[in-house]
Amino acid sequence: MASDGAGSLRPGGRTARTREAIAVALQAELLDVGYGGTTIDRIAQRAGVAKTTVYRRWGSVGQLVVDMFTQAAGAQIPIADTGSLEGDLRELARSSIALLQTPQRRTIFDIVVREAVHDPTARAALTAFFAARIDNAAVIVRRAVARGEVPADTDAAEVIRLVGAPYYARLFITGDPIGPEDADRAAAVVALAAREGLLATPARHQHSTPPA
Amino acid sequence: MASDGAGSLRPGGRTARTREAIAVALQAELLDVGYGGTTIDRIAQRAGVAKTTVYRRWGSVGQLVVDMFTQAAGAQIPIADTGSLEGDLRELARSSIALLQTPQRRTIFDIVVREAVHDPTARAALTAFFAARIDNAAVIVRRAVARGEVPADTDAAEVIRLVGAPYYARLFITGDPIGPEDADRAAAVVALAAREGLLATPARHQHSTPPA
Repeated sequence: MASDGAGSLRPGGRTARTREAIAVALQAELLDVGYGGTTIDRIAQRAGVAKTTVYRRWGSVGQLVVDMFTQAAGAQIPIADTGSLEGDLRELARSSIALLQTPQRRTIFDIVVREAVHDPTARAALTAFFAARIDNAAVIVRRAVARGEVPADTDAAEVIRLVGAPYYARLFITGDPIGPEDADRAAAVVALAAREGLLATPARHQHSTPPA
Repeated sequence: MASDGAGSLRPGGRTARTREAIAVALQAELLDVGYGGTTIDRIAQRAGVAKTTVYRRWGSVGQLVVDMFTQAAGAQIPIADTGSLEGDLRELARSSIALLQTPQRRTIFDIVVREAVHDPTARAALTAFFAARIDNAAVIVRRAVARGEVPADTDAAEVIRLVGAPYYARLFITGDPIGPEDADRAAAVVALAAREGLLATPARHQHSTPPA
């Protein structure tokens, strides 16, 4: 075990270096021994920081993962401009699936999805991640509206949500494999539905839970 | 704590009664104190059986939940025959969402989804549940093919999967509320895509992981 007292979080470069060392150690441990085998003690030892530093700041491996996920989530997928709604959605979905097929990325994502079922901090992190992704990708729908490809009242958030739903449901619910063909099919289905006016912002049906 | 030695599992009616008592106690505990607060000891005490009985058979609350889920999963959603693909899919999705909005059902489902991320037994239980549901609901697509509503090579499993994907993704990934309007939209989108031939069984693109 690491000795206590060394490497405490302090303002400035040292805190950032400590955080980076812990992030690297966390990733390595998760890939080496899985979520069930990863402990704060092992992460601290691997990062060369005091375990009390890690316990004081994060408390558990789950909270550490959620915090690292939130830090990394700022990097959004670049949005392609292919000239068609279907093309743009296909590129978005292909990039997203490629990320989910990266072992390092998938490991972290798995844990956040798992923790989000019961942990409010993880739930908030995951919801914030998707709110930012939807915000970032909504330009795809605005461009399609500007081209006259889809009706002006198309619900951009729902378009982006529906493109991702099939492969997230495969991964986490039905347990089916995912591949680029899931991106292509989802893009074709959602683009068709949007063009046919099925994805308009609901005028009267509101969700039973009011939006936050 | 319950005393050891009483209520051990034995063949016949007593085993069934013990299992039923444990299932009832598990549900009650989960609703009372949540997954984090539920312990084998508390379940055993509430069910009036020896905690060793529960430990020996299931080992953990997670495994107990998975086993109870598998026992209950045999009961399939009744399949409506409305005369149209969209109507049948809408009824299927509405029934599924209504079940997910039942607190008792949702509690168990949440835990299985959570455990399935890392536990192979939970993963297998969830995958088997959806394989059975798809098998049960595929008649919806066969009827639509027989009516000439969709092409003969429509992928029935993918149709059923895609109808559920939007509300499962809302619940477990993006953290959005669900309601009957999600059922109606999913049914409309998937029925349109199937009619337009977008959901044909893939002829050449195979998944990177071979089907089991």
